[in-house]
Amino acid sequence: MLYVFTGKGKGKTTAAIGSAIRALGAQKKVLFCQFLKPGNSSEFKILNSLDGFKGKACGRKGFFLPPQKLEDNPELEKRASPLEKIDKRKAREGLNWLRRQLSETEYGLIVLDEVNLALDFDLLEVGKVLDLVSDYSQDNFIFTGRKAPIDVIKQADLVTKCKEIKHPYRQGKDGKEGIEY
Amino acid sequence: MLYVFTGKGKGKTTAAIGSAIRALGAQKKVLFCQFLKPGNSSEFKILNSLDGFKGKACGRKGFFLPPQKLEDNPELEKRASPLEKIDKRKAREGLNWLRRQLSETEYGLIVLDEVNLALDFDLLEVGKVLDLVSDYSQDNFIFTGRKAPIDVIKQADLVTKCKEIKHPYRQGKDGKEGIEY
Repeated sequence: MLYVFTGKGKGKTTAAIGSAIRALGAQKKVLFCQFLKPGNSSEFKILNSLDGFKGKACGRKGFFLPPQKLEDNPELEKRASPLEKIDKRKAREGLNWLRRQLSETEYGLIVLDEVNLALDFDLLEVGKVLDLVSDYSQDNFIFTGRKAPIDVIKQADLVTKCKEIKHPYRQGKDGKEGIEY
Repeated sequence: MLYVFTGKGKGKTTAAIGSAIRALGAQKKVLFCQFLKPGNSSEFKILNSLDGFKGKACGRKGFFLPPQKLEDNPELEKRASPLEKIDKRKAREGLNWLRRQLSETEYGLIVLDEVNLALDFDLLEVGKVLDLVSDYSQDNFIFTGRKAPIDVIKQADLVTKCKEIKHPYRQGKDGKEGIEY
């Protein structure tokens, strides 16, 4: 099964983390690859301490920024555009790591966090990412990130679009550690 | 701050669980009350084992059913309608429990899972629930559940609507343990 969380609203990565906790609670092993982000967020401290969890982050610090911040600030948008070589290499390393782990161990849930946006930035080929899902179709995959490509939507069994109705960034409030990241 | 996850799509409760993990990772204490559901889902096994987490479920088995199942089956809809006295008492017990915990200990994140739907069923008064948020406005609250009342939306700082684009129940597939519950 392929589950997709997309859209601009908050809740996509946290839903994937919650799903990971649910799966671990049901004695399933969880493989979690975070694209675009450097993996220094609060949740990894807990996740990495749990039996059955294996995670990797393959992003670069300063690359990923929330859309609410980008829209209001073209300077940030520039800083956040991909540096072709570095970011492609890092994203591919992530995908290769996933394939290697899956060939060695059986996982009940595999999360590709922010992979939709990595695909939108052309850091990965959509065919190669979806091949991974087809090759392990007995397992459950979660893809997160805004701008999920149409090919991902088509292959998905479940798609939730997180729509932003209200957001504190828009009201000039900053994200809080342990809540937003 | 009040964060609201509403809408019919999958991801609301899992986003709240993910937020709880993030908060725990940032050394914040988390208080988690699950309305309508009996608290036997896989994630509680993990959450209850974590330092700083305090949880309670105050629902009744068989009451809560996913909307995708209800729509196709009027018999289930009947079974799922609230038994006025039992369900009101249980929901109020939950709210009282929250108030008691908050008066004793400081929490960084307080989750009221499925409270939106409990409010929609008139099991709780919206004024009393929002008073709790106002009384502890320095803390962070998350409300989940479809059909968030307008008063909740108005008081919220952030609202995400999880919109269902595709769902496996609609394709005749059943929910899987450790993934859907």
